[in-house]
Amino acid sequence: MAMVCLSDFEAYAKKYLPKIAWDYFAAGADDCTTRDENILAYKRIRFRPRMLRDVSVMDIRTEILGSEISFPVGIAPTGFHQLAWPDGEKSTARAARAMNTCYIASTYSTCSLEEISAAAPGGLRWFQLYIHRNRAASQQLVRRAEASGFQGLVLTADLPYTGKRRDDVRNGFRLPPHMKVKNLEGAFEVCKMSPLDPSVTWNDIYWLRSLTRLPIIIKGILTREDAELAVRHGVQGIIVSNHGGRQLDEGPATIDALVEVVEAVRGRVEVYVDGGIRKGSDVLKALALGAKCVFIGRPALWGLAYKGEEGLQDVLRILQDEFRLSMALAG
Amino acid sequence: MAMVCLSDFEAYAKKYLPKIAWDYFAAGADDCTTRDENILAYKRIRFRPRMLRDVSVMDIRTEILGSEISFPVGIAPTGFHQLAWPDGEKSTARAARAMNTCYIASTYSTCSLEEISAAAPGGLRWFQLYIHRNRAASQQLVRRAEASGFQGLVLTADLPYTGKRRDDVRNGFRLPPHMKVKNLEGAFEVCKMSPLDPSVTWNDIYWLRSLTRLPIIIKGILTREDAELAVRHGVQGIIVSNHGGRQLDEGPATIDALVEVVEAVRGRVEVYVDGGIRKGSDVLKALALGAKCVFIGRPALWGLAYKGEEGLQDVLRILQDEFRLSMALAG
Amino acid sequence: MAMVCLSDFEAYAKKYLPKIAWDYFAAGADDCTTRDENILAYKRIRFRPRMLRDVSVMDIRTEILGSEISFPVGIAPTGFHQLAWPDGEKSTARAARAMNTCYIASTYSTCSLEEISAAAPGGLRWFQLYIHRNRAASQQLVRRAEASGFQGLVLTADLPYTGKRRDDVRNGFRLPPHMKVKNLEGAFEVCKMSPLDPSVTWNDIYWLRSLTRLPIIIKGILTREDAELAVRHGVQGIIVSNHGGRQLDEGPATIDALVEVVEAVRGRVEVYVDGGIRKGSDVLKALALGAKCVFIGRPALWGLAYKGEEGLQDVLRILQDEFRLSMALAG
Amino acid sequence: MAMVCLSDFEAYAKKYLPKIAWDYFAAGADDCTTRDENILAYKRIRFRPRMLRDVSVMDIRTEILGSEISFPVGIAPTGFHQLAWPDGEKSTARAARAMNTCYIASTYSTCSLEEISAAAPGGLRWFQLYIHRNRAASQQLVRRAEASGFQGLVLTADLPYTGKRRDDVRNGFRLPPHMKVKNLEGAFEVCKMSPLDPSVTWNDIYWLRSLTRLPIIIKGILTREDAELAVRHGVQGIIVSNHGGRQLDEGPATIDALVEVVEAVRGRVEVYVDGGIRKGSDVLKALALGAKCVFIGRPALWGLAYKGEEGLQDVLRILQDEFRLSMALAG
Repeated sequence: MAMVCLSDFEAYAKKYLPKIAWDYFAAGADDCTTRDENILAYKRIRFRPRMLRDVSVMDIRTEILGSEISFPVGIAPTGFHQLAWPDGEKSTARAARAMNTCYIASTYSTCSLEEISAAAPGGLRWFQLYIHRNRAASQQLVRRAEASGFQGLVLTADLPYTGKRRDDVRNGFRLPPHMKVKNLEGAFEVCKMSPLDPSVTWNDIYWLRSLTRLPIIIKGILTREDAELAVRHGVQGIIVSNHGGRQLDEGPATIDALVEVVEAVRGRVEVYVDGGIRKGSDVLKALALGAKCVFIGRPALWGLAYKGEEGLQDVLRILQDEFRLSMALAG
Repeated sequence: MAMVCLSDFEAYAKKYLPKIAWDYFAAGADDCTTRDENILAYKRIRFRPRMLRDVSVMDIRTEILGSEISFPVGIAPTGFHQLAWPDGEKSTARAARAMNTCYIASTYSTCSLEEISAAAPGGLRWFQLYIHRNRAASQQLVRRAEASGFQGLVLTADLPYTGKRRDDVRNGFRLPPHMKVKNLEGAFEVCKMSPLDPSVTWNDIYWLRSLTRLPIIIKGILTREDAELAVRHGVQGIIVSNHGGRQLDEGPATIDALVEVVEAVRGRVEVYVDGGIRKGSDVLKALALGAKCVFIGRPALWGLAYKGEEGLQDVLRILQDEFRLSMALAG
Repeated sequence: MAMVCLSDFEAYAKKYLPKIAWDYFAAGADDCTTRDENILAYKRIRFRPRMLRDVSVMDIRTEILGSEISFPVGIAPTGFHQLAWPDGEKSTARAARAMNTCYIASTYSTCSLEEISAAAPGGLRWFQLYIHRNRAASQQLVRRAEASGFQGLVLTADLPYTGKRRDDVRNGFRLPPHMKVKNLEGAFEVCKMSPLDPSVTWNDIYWLRSLTRLPIIIKGILTREDAELAVRHGVQGIIVSNHGGRQLDEGPATIDALVEVVEAVRGRVEVYVDGGIRKGSDVLKALALGAKCVFIGRPALWGLAYKGEEGLQDVLRILQDEFRLSMALAG
Repeated sequence: MAMVCLSDFEAYAKKYLPKIAWDYFAAGADDCTTRDENILAYKRIRFRPRMLRDVSVMDIRTEILGSEISFPVGIAPTGFHQLAWPDGEKSTARAARAMNTCYIASTYSTCSLEEISAAAPGGLRWFQLYIHRNRAASQQLVRRAEASGFQGLVLTADLPYTGKRRDDVRNGFRLPPHMKVKNLEGAFEVCKMSPLDPSVTWNDIYWLRSLTRLPIIIKGILTREDAELAVRHGVQGIIVSNHGGRQLDEGPATIDALVEVVEAVRGRVEVYVDGGIRKGSDVLKALALGAKCVFIGRPALWGLAYKGEEGLQDVLRILQDEFRLSMALAG
């Protein structure tokens, strides 16, 4: 079967992944309305294509927080990559480096951040973290991320509690015994979500800032009010995200929320977006609406499920080709 | 099968209830447009989720007409609970008391209001009534409700005649011989709807008021004009309702009507809403739009059909958990 | 099978009529968009139901052009009733008289207007006609209608040529040999539509007026401009109609067009509407939007197909009951 | 099977063409959203039909760039007609001449323009071309088109690169060995799209103008800005087109884009439209919105697939009859 577009990888993953893993990756909260809206909202946006422009040479490189990437698509933080491919996040890191783009490693990785770092030295990587009840644990993660050469910290803001994903409840989802959330081993018991601290507020960004000189990117912003607060609290970047529709159902699609966030931010910090990117033209739409770069979540997992590092490169390459073609055809 | 969300209870009830009972509970008037709109209208409403607020402690208790309930979801009046579970409304009363919420018992109960009262002493209960051609019958019901400790009277305003529910006509729906509308025994022949008085007008609220010192809540209001009339005629509360879409088809969804009623009432009396609540986030939406509390109809029956009093508690507990989670995730 | 609503009659007719007859009655032009829009447009209109009004006594009689009918639903002109029931238009006339309403007999009847008249003496009937190339033929029809006691002439304006109904073309639709368009026998060859005169203009209404003192009702008006012209050319009534979606596809639904026609007419003549009436609440909507009366086309044929005159009475009685109930429930 | 409307030809072609050919003709870019939107957008446009106008005589002839055609429907440029019928573009040319309309022959024809010309001497034909990297090749094509009696040059502006048509990639689409892109034989290797020059800009229209006195029509304009540029660069006509939805997906439907192009052009040059025409009423809508003429793409191929030149004439005749009827019924 030819892998022509991202849906082909989705179909493959659905067919070959264990049901419990597929369900976990595919899950949305409640009725999955927001998960699906993320995609539908892109379809509602229309291009106004311009003709007869010289599109023989196109430069699709960009910079995020000062680092050049080969095209404006990075890897969003998602957990448990070993569910998709034995080498897990190590493969992800290698694919991202090979394609010269940014990989945001999740706290809930099945490889430790040191392993990830060692797997692809020199790659551009950010580390995603939560603020834990046990602040020492969070502090330790920040130190380890710095020591392992991660170049940014992505603070997830939309998970004071885990959303209700019905299939995971039905499946009694938990990691198979041979996989571990290695970043948290020893720190606390991880399968319960309780370590996350639901009392976190904007002031905790100052605390996080006091721990590190790495840039802080906040992930999970969906309103102009929160975008303004994020800028005022000194973050370097904002990822407009609804956690792939896995947290609060029936909030806005990210591409719709992007518009108001970009407007509120007025260029003071970089704005990115994740959720619902399935084609190169989606990337172009996000950029046209003010995103500096987009991040892909589930499609990266499908790529891993297909052929590990190679499969993920295939996914990125398809997006790259489609993005370049869309730019040319849109003039 | 895990019971994860209210749809699971619906599926169970559809599978295990006798068809004639399922059809009666599920029925909507004519094309069932309004019944279905009640649900669809909630889906059209979008949250604007806010991040990084301290949601570690949330108080979801509320008060309705001065009585505290554990969370803003009560049981709407529906008839014939023995069709769902042998103990009928006695189970409903016990479940509501166990969850510390309000149960509105229907005139068309298969247990008498004295039996309901005796089944769960001390629970918060209101009694739903119609105004009958035979006013003495209505007056007697008011007295019995007072004597049995009911703390409010819910006057249903939208049933001068019964709506046309096609499946019930096809099935020739009537109660099985071993069930009775016990509240009306002796008073008049109940299977004919004729005892209801279609000539009732707003002035009859004064008559009802003259009979009792219990608060009067009017159920079935859908417009600002009627909301204003209700306030002027001295009711203590309004339930925005379209009778679950069982009366006039192609009127507004209740969540849409809520907005104009709340606006017209301007806080002078409490406003509640029923119809279409299927998830905790629906409760949050109704409250955000001005409802003091919501009431569930069919989902309560599904809970009863599943496991009687226990099943109904399951339904309420799921709604409570979902409501609390939605509040946290919406900030 | 219980006949509970009009769809039941539709299902019956679809099942028991010869395919060629069903297809002919069901046909819409081209993609049948307008035929289906006629129905969908009603569903988009929402009631604002009012409560606690005295609805114990309701008078649903009305008058059209001075004649009282028992409720505001008449029979629209449709052709070839013998395709539905052996007695054809004679049964239709009897049912209409039994229900005390108005029947508009079509030129393309399979009974002559004299036979129709004789079948139900004293019933309120209008005669529908076209203007033919052979004006003498038209003139003769007017005379016969007068002589047979018809009390109005309905001039169809939307058929300069017959619309393209694909199924009829595929089926090679023509009347079975034992049926005749009796009104036109001898006048000209009827299976070709060519006798209709596509050069007819508004001035021909003056010509028609010169032939008769019967009121002239024009059928097929869909715009305010034509409504104004109709009033100025002295018609007594307007039927907003798109010929059941059988002529130009992708024009407006009749209930939508009604609004602008009523507005343009400003009460100077009576306005009626046909197309898409399937429930009593549709009748109420049409009246609320300014129609004096509605006419049903296909549902009348389904009633005939079910049980002739009796079946059509069933259809009318269901509409009457539903209409009365809708009025009561809408307050 | 009776061929009653264009969908019948589509069904025939889908059934009888080799899958690889059907897929090629049917293909749209990416998710085929724009391909399908071309059709859906027509359905959203509603007529306001006027009555009682003299429609006994209708003249549906028109002129495009001074040449009379029998009705305002021409043949859009599409490639590889031998995939549909052995005689390929020769049949197309004969059918267009027989129906007295305009045929735009594609550069990517499987017959040479000399063969096309010889097959139907005297027919009105325009030649569609791209600007190639090898300008001499383009220049040569212009000379040959002039020499062969083509009366207009249609410059396709929306194909700096070929759109991504997933099925073609999956099928590994290429011409069967016995077919050739005869216009380009010898000039360069044609199966690679690389000969097209993506650096073409508006200034190249001046270059094209310098080569020929034939009128230049630009095809692929979708915005008012480009329409203005086209007029300023001296083209004689504009075809509003999105290449049948085969290039950039999720741009506007052509009938929607037509409105803004017509407005911008203000009558200074002729405006045509292609894409989504499936019924005579679509033609009428396009003309009502300002198009001088429409062009059909896929329907012409279905006609060829059905019966070659005869089948294409059937398609054109059906459109002509439907167009005339729509005009009459719309008044």
